[in-house]
Amino acid sequence: MRRAVIAGVGLMGGSLGLALRRRGWRVVGLGRDAARLAKARRRGAVDQTTTDPARALPGADVLVLCAPVDQLADQARRLRPFVENKTLVMDVGSVKGAVLRALAPLFPPGGPVFVGAHPMTGSEKTGVENARADLYRGAPCVVTPAPGTPVRVTARAEKFWRELGARVVRLTPDAHDRAVAVVSHLPHLIADALMLTAGDAGAGPLFRLAAGSFRDATRVAGADPALWRAIFTQNDAALRRALDVFEGALGRLAKGWPLPALRRARALNDRFRKDRP
Amino acid sequence: MRRAVIAGVGLMGGSLGLALRRRGWRVVGLGRDAARLAKARRRGAVDQTTTDPARALPGADVLVLCAPVDQLADQARRLRPFVENKTLVMDVGSVKGAVLRALAPLFPPGGPVFVGAHPMTGSEKTGVENARADLYRGAPCVVTPAPGTPVRVTARAEKFWRELGARVVRLTPDAHDRAVAVVSHLPHLIADALMLTAGDAGAGPLFRLAAGSFRDATRVAGADPALWRAIFTQNDAALRRALDVFEGALGRLAKGWPLPALRRARALNDRFRKDRP
Repeated sequence: MRRAVIAGVGLMGGSLGLALRRRGWRVVGLGRDAARLAKARRRGAVDQTTTDPARALPGADVLVLCAPVDQLADQARRLRPFVENKTLVMDVGSVKGAVLRALAPLFPPGGPVFVGAHPMTGSEKTGVENARADLYRGAPCVVTPAPGTPVRVTARAEKFWRELGARVVRLTPDAHDRAVAVVSHLPHLIADALMLTAGDAGAGPLFRLAAGSFRDATRVAGADPALWRAIFTQNDAALRRALDVFEGALGRLAKGWPLPALRRARALNDRFRKDRP
Repeated sequence: MRRAVIAGVGLMGGSLGLALRRRGWRVVGLGRDAARLAKARRRGAVDQTTTDPARALPGADVLVLCAPVDQLADQARRLRPFVENKTLVMDVGSVKGAVLRALAPLFPPGGPVFVGAHPMTGSEKTGVENARADLYRGAPCVVTPAPGTPVRVTARAEKFWRELGARVVRLTPDAHDRAVAVVSHLPHLIADALMLTAGDAGAGPLFRLAAGSFRDATRVAGADPALWRAIFTQNDAALRRALDVFEGALGRLAKGWPLPALRRARALNDRFRKDRP
């Protein structure tokens, strides 16, 4: 029986456990908080739980690191001594360049291999109580091999995510970070800034008027502030570049709300919705 | 039988007709394009249609001007000679200050009364084919009496929208414009700018990765560019102020992604969702 160890059983790790168990994997939940682990067990996200890496990791086919991005390096450092050569190590973090630079020294050639992965799903909700077996189905999952990652290891990582129904996209870590800065981190930042703008304008009365466009644009402002601060910080350079481009676009629009630019936005939107209905 | 004349039978006017007819009103569709009027008739949005204001307006209890905001003044000027004193005139435009300043001279004391209204609903879709009898149900509808509007006239306008299930909010035209600049026009502008940012970054590959936050934040970039250019232009001053505040908020966030500001955005978001689940 294939065996997966999930280190960190929140929304992402818990959903992964639910999905893997349905496909016949044996899933071990590994963590430092016994109460959180017990909750994941009750939720059916894992078959067994332990706080001891020495018990969890021997014999594992896959280890998936599910700590928040700013704690991934610590988590990997702690677990590394117990990882066998046969075990494929992956993460699910929202930033890949910084994570790879921190983790690469822990996984030199000849030992177990680390391949970064970023399933682009989730929600503004957190915790195993919001986990869903189908969280990864149909979602894009970016797999980010490093220059030296053996081809068969990348293939193994990609097969893992495809088995869960994800649409695998292969990118370099830096290309991933530039892309998600625009399509994920920037929309989160905008949601926060739009909420703060409403706050400055006297939230209460405004909120009575806010209809679909405000509600949709701010939904992700409900996401966890500490988690997102970590993501923004880890992807600082790419996010700043995306923000510059966005502010440039706003500036062009503010110069008389030019119809050609508004039409181009609409045309891009049509193309986007056609690709992803 | 109560009689309403709807001038302009697109999404807003057509939905209004559907809703009024269900409540026993007789609805006349008035316009300049016979083919559009015929389509509204077939859709069941109006009882009868005409391109002749002299035939439509005598005896009307209510005239609702449903032209796009930049064509409202022309529409009102054209219809004004045929409006009887007993007829309450309203619009459904997204901007109220500029519209009132254009229309007030047409409705001096002693004749029919004009009261601005803005039902905050609709969609990125347009046309009577997307009209829905329940479009106004549960939606905020801002009613914007001018300083000289008689109290009983304001009450009559508010009763009209309440009958359709709208949540009536009374504001001055300028307070309305400041509020919608933040909760409606700015989110639209942001959606456009975010689409243009994705376009600058090479839309296609990005679109494959875009998940919920990008999709939600850009939904209204699908709205009609000419219609929204008119709205931005008519509400230029308030929108620029809202944009300044928004850019200030982005700037503060970009200074190290400070946790207190991110927490404040989340708290505002919690308050917003609690008020409007």
